[in-house]
Amino acid sequence: MIVGCCYYRRIKDAEFIYRNRNGSVIVHNVETNDSTVLIENKIIVSIKAIRYEVSPDRQYGLFAYDIAPIYRHSYTAFYVLRKLPNGEPQNLYPPEVSNTKLQYAGWGPKGQQLIFIFENNIYYCAHVGKQAIRVVSTGKEKVIFNGLSDWLYEEEILKTHIAHWWSPDGTRLAYATINDSRVPTMEIPMFTGSLYPKVETYHYPKVGTENPSISLHVIGLNGPTHDLEMTPPDDARMREHYITMVKWATSTKVAVNWLNRAQNFSILTLCDATTGVCTKKHEDESTAWLHRQNEEPVFSKDGRKFFFVRAIPQGGRGEFYHIAMSSSQPNSSNDNLQTITSGDWDVTKILGYDEKQHKIYFLSTEELPRTRHLYNASTKGNFNRQCISCDLIQNCTYFSASFSHNMAYFILTCEGPRVPMVTVYNVSDKQKLFDLELNEKVQKTVAERQMPIRDYVDMKIHDYKLLIQVSKPAIFTENMHYPLLLVVDGTPGTQSVTDKFEVNWESVMVSSHGAIVMKFDGRGSGFQGTKLLHDIKRKLGLFEEKDQTEAVRKMLQNTFIDNSRVGVFGKDYGGYLSSYILLAGEENKEPLFQCGAALSPLTDFRLYASAFSERYLGLQGIDNKAYESTKLAHRVRSTKDQKFLIIHATADEKIHFQHTADLITHLIRAAANYSLQIYPDEGHYFNSPSLEQHLYKSMVNFFVECFIEQDKAPVVVTKEDEDED
Amino acid sequence: MIVGCCYYRRIKDAEFIYRNRNGSVIVHNVETNDSTVLIENKIIVSIKAIRYEVSPDRQYGLFAYDIAPIYRHSYTAFYVLRKLPNGEPQNLYPPEVSNTKLQYAGWGPKGQQLIFIFENNIYYCAHVGKQAIRVVSTGKEKVIFNGLSDWLYEEEILKTHIAHWWSPDGTRLAYATINDSRVPTMEIPMFTGSLYPKVETYHYPKVGTENPSISLHVIGLNGPTHDLEMTPPDDARMREHYITMVKWATSTKVAVNWLNRAQNFSILTLCDATTGVCTKKHEDESTAWLHRQNEEPVFSKDGRKFFFVRAIPQGGRGEFYHIAMSSSQPNSSNDNLQTITSGDWDVTKILGYDEKQHKIYFLSTEELPRTRHLYNASTKGNFNRQCISCDLIQNCTYFSASFSHNMAYFILTCEGPRVPMVTVYNVSDKQKLFDLELNEKVQKTVAERQMPIRDYVDMKIHDYKLLIQVSKPAIFTENMHYPLLLVVDGTPGTQSVTDKFEVNWESVMVSSHGAIVMKFDGRGSGFQGTKLLHDIKRKLGLFEEKDQTEAVRKMLQNTFIDNSRVGVFGKDYGGYLSSYILLAGEENKEPLFQCGAALSPLTDFRLYASAFSERYLGLQGIDNKAYESTKLAHRVRSTKDQKFLIIHATADEKIHFQHTADLITHLIRAAANYSLQIYPDEGHYFNSPSLEQHLYKSMVNFFVECFIEQDKAPVVVTKEDEDED
Repeated sequence: MIVGCCYYRRIKDAEFIYRNRNGSVIVHNVETNDSTVLIENKIIVSIKAIRYEVSPDRQYGLFAYDIAPIYRHSYTAFYVLRKLPNGEPQNLYPPEVSNTKLQYAGWGPKGQQLIFIFENNIYYCAHVGKQAIRVVSTGKEKVIFNGLSDWLYEEEILKTHIAHWWSPDGTRLAYATINDSRVPTMEIPMFTGSLYPKVETYHYPKVGTENPSISLHVIGLNGPTHDLEMTPPDDARMREHYITMVKWATSTKVAVNWLNRAQNFSILTLCDATTGVCTKKHEDESTAWLHRQNEEPVFSKDGRKFFFVRAIPQGGRGEFYHIAMSSSQPNSSNDNLQTITSGDWDVTKILGYDEKQHKIYFLSTEELPRTRHLYNASTKGNFNRQCISCDLIQNCTYFSASFSHNMAYFILTCEGPRVPMVTVYNVSDKQKLFDLELNEKVQKTVAERQMPIRDYVDMKIHDYKLLIQVSKPAIFTENMHYPLLLVVDGTPGTQSVTDKFEVNWESVMVSSHGAIVMKFDGRGSGFQGTKLLHDIKRKLGLFEEKDQTEAVRKMLQNTFIDNSRVGVFGKDYGGYLSSYILLAGEENKEPLFQCGAALSPLTDFRLYASAFSERYLGLQGIDNKAYESTKLAHRVRSTKDQKFLIIHATADEKIHFQHTADLITHLIRAAANYSLQIYPDEGHYFNSPSLEQHLYKSMVNFFVECFIEQDKAPVVVTKEDEDED
Repeated sequence: MIVGCCYYRRIKDAEFIYRNRNGSVIVHNVETNDSTVLIENKIIVSIKAIRYEVSPDRQYGLFAYDIAPIYRHSYTAFYVLRKLPNGEPQNLYPPEVSNTKLQYAGWGPKGQQLIFIFENNIYYCAHVGKQAIRVVSTGKEKVIFNGLSDWLYEEEILKTHIAHWWSPDGTRLAYATINDSRVPTMEIPMFTGSLYPKVETYHYPKVGTENPSISLHVIGLNGPTHDLEMTPPDDARMREHYITMVKWATSTKVAVNWLNRAQNFSILTLCDATTGVCTKKHEDESTAWLHRQNEEPVFSKDGRKFFFVRAIPQGGRGEFYHIAMSSSQPNSSNDNLQTITSGDWDVTKILGYDEKQHKIYFLSTEELPRTRHLYNASTKGNFNRQCISCDLIQNCTYFSASFSHNMAYFILTCEGPRVPMVTVYNVSDKQKLFDLELNEKVQKTVAERQMPIRDYVDMKIHDYKLLIQVSKPAIFTENMHYPLLLVVDGTPGTQSVTDKFEVNWESVMVSSHGAIVMKFDGRGSGFQGTKLLHDIKRKLGLFEEKDQTEAVRKMLQNTFIDNSRVGVFGKDYGGYLSSYILLAGEENKEPLFQCGAALSPLTDFRLYASAFSERYLGLQGIDNKAYESTKLAHRVRSTKDQKFLIIHATADEKIHFQHTADLITHLIRAAANYSLQIYPDEGHYFNSPSLEQHLYKSMVNFFVECFIEQDKAPVVVTKEDEDED
């Protein structure tokens, strides 16, 4: 895979590749402290390459330019190969076509082997200079995808456009075939740029429609290519299934996670790449829905032992996610399953297994739900665990990390609350070896500005002790009256309250416009037990609205909050919630919220991706009531005393403009107060920075103006009254 | 044709059919003063008929129900026949299909003969009870139209969906065949109402694309049907042509007007319906464009003499439209052409020719451009003319009229300034015979309300003495400061300043919100000479903006106008102008207009109907500069101190949503201030009264709020200052 932009790192045990300040790509050996320039910046600039990758043998660079985004992750680009440091560029095309963009190109794990994908077919090249051969030919543009995700898998299941996996020795390639031929077609009108509007079409499964079918194949790349399908589990419940995770355990065994369409039953198998036979290693079931289904297990070198995350009951708050260790027994077909961690906190990621030291490395929320610390735990004895990142860096409680193959070094990324930084450490003695990125520029900017102050307020909901995150202006004083802005995301299982560093339009609301921004994770949120998470099953919106509103009421008890200036914002699922919350007031009562905005809101779950809606609301036919009752249209009422802004790009490929069109139709019928902003022919992810700026400015302006307006009428009078007293 | 709704009138010499207060359809003889009930209201109500028509022999009623509008005029409906007064309903279907809607059904001129149209094929029924036979079978749904208009002909050329014409004796039917097969297809997305948005398609020719082709046919209905095409003029300039008018002169001769695609050359022919041979009767040419091409000539009974309107030079203000009389000479192939009227005013409609009295009846603007009075002129001697409606009804200066076949009676409709009324008169002595409609309810309402006062202000533009129409609140006083709203239409050749009675949202702005509304017809407007009209050729917007702005500046000299609260509104072409005018200010200067709104604006003439844009901007390829320079996108600039509202229905079939999408894209790029209101899946003509109400309310709210806002900042201070003085 080609990774891009600012810096780029890759561990080959002691060696790190990264892009330095000058823009050159450097290889640095942390043992010898040697640095070598691999690609000079001027080369990258001269071919306008946006992404680039160095071959495993470091002889060649692969450069992508003229990148055209498709969906969230996917794109097409032109590719060139260049012998390093400054050979002539060689175009990378399929043998039968010249001058064409590719859907993918990337090195394999060994030497100069590479594959590329064109028209959904996979091409393999054993080394640079050798003719590429088409190894998978069943592709059909926009219909049958080989080695790549379709829209649904990219956005909702695999969460990447890449659907192929190299065996560690580079002799085999596993790839998914995703067949959309029975999935209905979505048509998106493109209004501008031609005399007659054009319609862009792609397959998009909505609730109850035919889903894409998926199969997993392995081809051998040494000698004549042989294509073998991995056999899906023979279980009636898996008649319709997703493949949510693929990971090579060894050079001949591949782990595959299969999930039924209802998403409440999954089977983890280990498949023999030489026979296609898959053996069940684990099975999981849920009365609600299965969460975190695309995380990769970590295997021992021989593949006989592996670690994965599963939900384990921890008492009243339901299940939490912990590390399970599965070991195959020499003389038994049954595996031994042990739970390595426990407690009312989640393991959020397993990072690596140090076989020599019998240690498993992972991130967890053990300190607090909003933190992520790096831990290790012994895989022997009483599974003692140790925090590695705790108290390591000042004002840093939210980490991510990655380990070298030999488990000798790790890169630790501090993601907040302080300005993020990236550092390389020794595993053995936790000694810092090397700073990869200190973000000095951002640090300087932050130091110069009046950054918001983060504060936490206790909040009890039922039996939960939860926290409201509050961002206050730097010059906050209790004697002032501040407007309050609630920001909701709320996609089930996610978290809004974290210790991550963030500077965005919300910070602008705080630091430049004196607002107080609050976030709160109530029912439906993740990392605080599955009881809280699963409460919203088939009732999306209902409890979220209650909890968020309760949190706001709690905040309004503070005299420094002006209860005549309260706003709510959300996008996507959060846009569903912000609309739900704004419309929740009663017709003739003073509204709790005076201002609300929704960006690309979901308004009818039937219209959204099958895999998302069915996960939380059930398969169609089983509980249609859940779909009907969650339609935002049913919440619409006259919003006379409220300002309501809806923003939607008309070519939104993820949450179709339909959602907003439907909501608006009902708002018009109810003669409700609202305003609309559209971005003609733009997609969900606003690929242009200038449009993103426009979007953020619009949101800031909306809340600033709404708060000013709300301020005017009553506050002027009050102030005069006060003066007179 | 079935005509609908409130009252319904038809002259058969002394007899008038109309619907009375009780809803019953009555035939009234003005000679005998007898009244007979033809259809009782309960019958109309019982079958939910929206439209109905009585057969010429008065034996049957034809009722339409479940009417579904298509474009501006066209609709489909179910039809039933009923013997009068209360026979059993008989469904009207084609022989091969049952239970289907028809595109048209209507009686012929004699007995019970009727035709209907289904799937663009024409069916004839000689009398009720006789099997209908398909007499035209070349139709193809949405592609080849027989007897009906396609979108372009309905909206821009014939201005009706009906494209067939009965010979006066009912023995022949002329019909147009309009072939859209080479016209590009427009796709309109329908967002709501289904899981996946649907696309509605129809043929819509834009500038420079293939136009519909049209031919005119006549079929005989007595005996075996024989289909004969009328031969188009053999003139190279007519290679691509429109047929803009068809009118039977006698039972065997049909007049046809042919117009070239560039719309600067036309030929009026008289075609022999028995041979298809067409003889040229008149030819017209313009250096700009030909105006008023679909008005019917009036023929003498023998068809040898006819009257039509043509532009005649009248000095410095260019040409005006006057009545020409063409008489065929017994022993000559040349016709004698005489001009009956002259002067710097227009004949607006020829109504009838009284052969016995040698009088031609017509409407004209002779009194003032904003009036329409009924005149007659002698067709002999010195063509003496006489005003019939002048001083006939108090406070009424805008009339329309229609004459009975025998020229003995006429219906005179007073359209304003007073509340409209309809009366039947004797032609011979101009005695009033009968009041058809006095609009007592409206009169009462008007009397109870504070209606706006209409006023006129002189305005000199170049050499023209023009008038600004000003509507002031009833309680107007010179000491107050009023906001000013300019309403523009400005479609070339039309008129905004007339004496017509009007109550609409603009009146609400005046009477309920104390605004002064002004209208002004400058360059590009009609009825004041072709020099004023044709000035805007290839420069749409430029002079209109100048003239309207100048008129507003003139108004601002009045101290009673608050120059900090000036707005402009327009729809369709007027939306182009209102946007043009709003955006015309200079970036760093105080804007002349603080508030502007555009409803379904045209923003790029290339995207609009070929026949409209090419008429004013020329054929594509000849003057592409004219298209480029009139794009609203080029006018877009930051509108910081202005409020700009754009309203567009997303399924607008006339002015596609593309127009607004394109404008908005540029407004976003310029970070301009604007707000948008869309009506999802609604068409251009808002067929629902509740949506129309919503639309008008939105416009009123926009201007009221904008005026209040503009008022706040400066005026509060001023007022306090005044109080202190």
